[in-house]
Amino acid sequence: MASEELPNRPKPEETIANIDPSKASAATPSDPTAEGPSKSASKNALKKAAKEKAKAEKAAQRAAQEKAQAAAQQTADTAKGLYGPLPETEDVLPATRFTELSEELAEKEITVVARVDNARVQSAKLAFLMLRQQGQKVQAVIAAAEPISRQMVKYTGGLNVNSIVQVTGIVKKAEIPIVSATYSNVEIHIRKVYMIAEASQQLPMQVKDAERPPPESTEEGQVDAEGAPLVTLKTRLDNRVLDLQTEANQAITWISSGVAQLFAEYMLKSGARWISTPKLVGAATEGGSNVFEIKYFKRKGYLAQSPQLYKQMCIAGDMESVFEIAPVFRAEDSNTHRHMTEFTGLDFEKTFRHHYHEVLEFAEELLVFILGELKERYKDKIAIIQKTYPKAGDFRLPKHGKALRLNYMDGVALLKEAGVDVSEQEKFENDFTTAMEKQLGQIIRDKYDTDFYVLDKFPMAVRPFYTKPCPNDSRFSNSYDFFMRGEEIMSGAQRINDYKELENAMIAKGVNPHQEGFEDYLTAFRQGCPPHAGGGLGLNRIVMFFLGLPNIRMATLFPRDPQRLRP
Amino acid sequence: MASEELPNRPKPEETIANIDPSKASAATPSDPTAEGPSKSASKNALKKAAKEKAKAEKAAQRAAQEKAQAAAQQTADTAKGLYGPLPETEDVLPATRFTELSEELAEKEITVVARVDNARVQSAKLAFLMLRQQGQKVQAVIAAAEPISRQMVKYTGGLNVNSIVQVTGIVKKAEIPIVSATYSNVEIHIRKVYMIAEASQQLPMQVKDAERPPPESTEEGQVDAEGAPLVTLKTRLDNRVLDLQTEANQAITWISSGVAQLFAEYMLKSGARWISTPKLVGAATEGGSNVFEIKYFKRKGYLAQSPQLYKQMCIAGDMESVFEIAPVFRAEDSNTHRHMTEFTGLDFEKTFRHHYHEVLEFAEELLVFILGELKERYKDKIAIIQKTYPKAGDFRLPKHGKALRLNYMDGVALLKEAGVDVSEQEKFENDFTTAMEKQLGQIIRDKYDTDFYVLDKFPMAVRPFYTKPCPNDSRFSNSYDFFMRGEEIMSGAQRINDYKELENAMIAKGVNPHQEGFEDYLTAFRQGCPPHAGGGLGLNRIVMFFLGLPNIRMATLFPRDPQRLRP
Repeated sequence: MASEELPNRPKPEETIANIDPSKASAATPSDPTAEGPSKSASKNALKKAAKEKAKAEKAAQRAAQEKAQAAAQQTADTAKGLYGPLPETEDVLPATRFTELSEELAEKEITVVARVDNARVQSAKLAFLMLRQQGQKVQAVIAAAEPISRQMVKYTGGLNVNSIVQVTGIVKKAEIPIVSATYSNVEIHIRKVYMIAEASQQLPMQVKDAERPPPESTEEGQVDAEGAPLVTLKTRLDNRVLDLQTEANQAITWISSGVAQLFAEYMLKSGARWISTPKLVGAATEGGSNVFEIKYFKRKGYLAQSPQLYKQMCIAGDMESVFEIAPVFRAEDSNTHRHMTEFTGLDFEKTFRHHYHEVLEFAEELLVFILGELKERYKDKIAIIQKTYPKAGDFRLPKHGKALRLNYMDGVALLKEAGVDVSEQEKFENDFTTAMEKQLGQIIRDKYDTDFYVLDKFPMAVRPFYTKPCPNDSRFSNSYDFFMRGEEIMSGAQRINDYKELENAMIAKGVNPHQEGFEDYLTAFRQGCPPHAGGGLGLNRIVMFFLGLPNIRMATLFPRDPQRLRP
Repeated sequence: MASEELPNRPKPEETIANIDPSKASAATPSDPTAEGPSKSASKNALKKAAKEKAKAEKAAQRAAQEKAQAAAQQTADTAKGLYGPLPETEDVLPATRFTELSEELAEKEITVVARVDNARVQSAKLAFLMLRQQGQKVQAVIAAAEPISRQMVKYTGGLNVNSIVQVTGIVKKAEIPIVSATYSNVEIHIRKVYMIAEASQQLPMQVKDAERPPPESTEEGQVDAEGAPLVTLKTRLDNRVLDLQTEANQAITWISSGVAQLFAEYMLKSGARWISTPKLVGAATEGGSNVFEIKYFKRKGYLAQSPQLYKQMCIAGDMESVFEIAPVFRAEDSNTHRHMTEFTGLDFEKTFRHHYHEVLEFAEELLVFILGELKERYKDKIAIIQKTYPKAGDFRLPKHGKALRLNYMDGVALLKEAGVDVSEQEKFENDFTTAMEKQLGQIIRDKYDTDFYVLDKFPMAVRPFYTKPCPNDSRFSNSYDFFMRGEEIMSGAQRINDYKELENAMIAKGVNPHQEGFEDYLTAFRQGCPPHAGGGLGLNRIVMFFLGLPNIRMATLFPRDPQRLRP
């Protein structure tokens, strides 16, 4: 019998869903003889006992009959081979993707491979499956009618949620739209259903519950206005494999893929070389406190906080224009919506002839390209995400494809105009606070109608030692930040390329140029290095702010923060 | 005066090259009066002394004259503004790349930006510069003739090696080919020469010496048959920034870039999603001894040895086909020609419908694509590398673009036929040794005329726990290795996707499925995971074996091994 061929699978009767303790006890025939025939048995009692006996015999008879009938039916299962485990002999038919489904396929037989989003027995002769493929849903229905047997209906309606099945059936136009399905105008009338991979577990959360955005509060067990469960971000991330199965997350991971692709595409087209710089380094050169220490055989090593020094060494090595896509590690104990201990860095570094604005313009065009192409090439994905996260579709690109560039002090002035206290910033000693950045983002959106913009000429005091000071005004530097929706996605600058100047700049910033680990870096400049500038982007931040997601963890496959090292 | 405007630069007279102790002493006029006029001074001696005095006075006079002349010349330097630091006012002329140089540019004025590979004063009126751009060389010459002054000639001939200069000059056909130049049929007659970035240091090795392959021995101070210095691999890697400036290394880094590009190109075209999985993990799941331990705030963390578990979790998360380009960390104390503690992994994982050979074929086509396109798109780079490393051009691709696939046991049989003792391999318990792999590579090259091939169906005993056993013969597994020139570049397999089977396989391999860190991985299978297979390639190995380089460090930007954590 087909269902017996399932390996390691409890029979339907044994599944957790079918073991209802209350029903189980109710079904147990009450047995008044349990205590043995009583000495004080009355006539009535005897009569009653005889009656019970007869009843029990009848029940036993009926059960035996049913059993025999069932066995007969089983051997004669007209649907044998049409359900259960995928037969070795089954042809691998080309599977239809849900995205290909339309009314034009009506009355045609198709095969699909999909997850069981929900299975429901309507009657002994009718069951429904909601099928899910990369978050999208289609309804399938099975009705007992030769050769489809009642056993096959029972099997189908009893499939464990999240199991992966191969279903063959006839496409039918839905008489009334199936509102809970993504493809609401069609349904599949099942002819065959085979198990590909069974989910044997009770799920810790339902994928369909993760389709609604997480609540702001971290409290578990919340419900929305209609009483539907709200799944916290923590529960989602703890069960990230299930969480990834939602339609919105499928689309978000496509956007992430797209950002990496578009970055590489632009860089390669520009003639840049793709590099991989080491993450294992011998010294904590970029500030000891934020660096992860590793055991490196018998000594200490560290994880690179950025490819900064190495991409500059590539420039010193005559590579002219380089880029890297690689993890960046930050041992900062920051527990915010936009910080992680590991993220994907998109780094580039490039020589220029006369002015660092040659590189700044290149970077501005890069971002305009990435954001513009995301809107274009991932239109459908964005529309899907928008169903759950409404901001996803409203990112405003600069007009005429040209980035808005302001000086840092212009930003200070805009904030001052809006009544913000910028006295600290006017001293050129402090960078904007996160709140100020967001406010500036709103002001710029209102005034210039763009969510992407650049601030140039940051105060020297807030930039790292390798930043080139502004030649006309040493309070400032030839450095820039890029913003999306008022939050920083990139930091970059012209770098000092003269050895003496670099050494002095390090001393001025309190960095000892002769400490371990700087020797190779400094030597690169002593041996001649052309003028260059570059920047480092956070892929996850681009995804987060482009889509207007409230938390960077939602834009990261398996996020890492000071609290989270799993899954 | 122009040369005085150079910041932090010793005057030519002060450079180390100009301080020749032997010449310095020879030039000191002998002074017989040093001991004071002798009591025993003869008439002759007095005469001689008077003569000497007159001579010395004349010499002093001449020196004073020359000094005055020089001073007069300096103020009247006809070349003022034509050399020295790049003037702010200088137009940024579009620079000509060496690759654009040809006799067709003869008599035209061009501007180039390049390093000084060598500078040589021929006479007061003539100096030569060998210019270098990404390892390629062009000769430039400067002759004193209005407005070019002798000072300018002296400045040009005294430029520090490796400095980056901007040279404007007239292209001339070379009368006889300049054999030491890459572009031997042209030279540049200098009109202007400006300093862009000065190399102030004596170089620890000459870039031109690194153009010859390193000696096999690690001993320093070796010379070749013609007496030219041989630079060991260690010295090269210690001075990697200089080493990267050779023509061959410029081309090798392009090949590395190309492998990453072609991998991404093929994957994206196939519909795969680009992923970034975490490198910081909470448990040492893939074997504790080979994993780097990190301090993760107040607890321990580890560096992922591969994206294996995470890419499988992406498949369980319905992503269907994923790939990653990221560093892979191995804490193995292996000090061989092909092992590193960090390398660039090219990983992919993919669902299949019926048979893992669907994925194996996909991977074979991937490699045929990468290797074929490298040969095509990087023809010029390969030709350059071949000048230093002759094997670079002789990699044999399989005929008709289809990979050669043999079973592991076919490989055993081929070795046996060649007289190799394969008794251990015939017991299905040991993998090939490195020597056997190389020998098999040679046998296959001779027999099938290909340097790329695949071995399928490895013994189960030599593969990790997540490998799917061969359904027909449990001694073997549905796993494969890819080889180039007889060395492994990829390992891959169908993975077990059934939870119970996986749990049993772990126990059978002595891995505790309930240890920390496996929970999330196992849960992914309990919740239903489709059949899938994949593989992991080493980018650096592909580059190394494709080009026939003797050491993987030569195919890596900044290599890491148990001994090396710098530069």
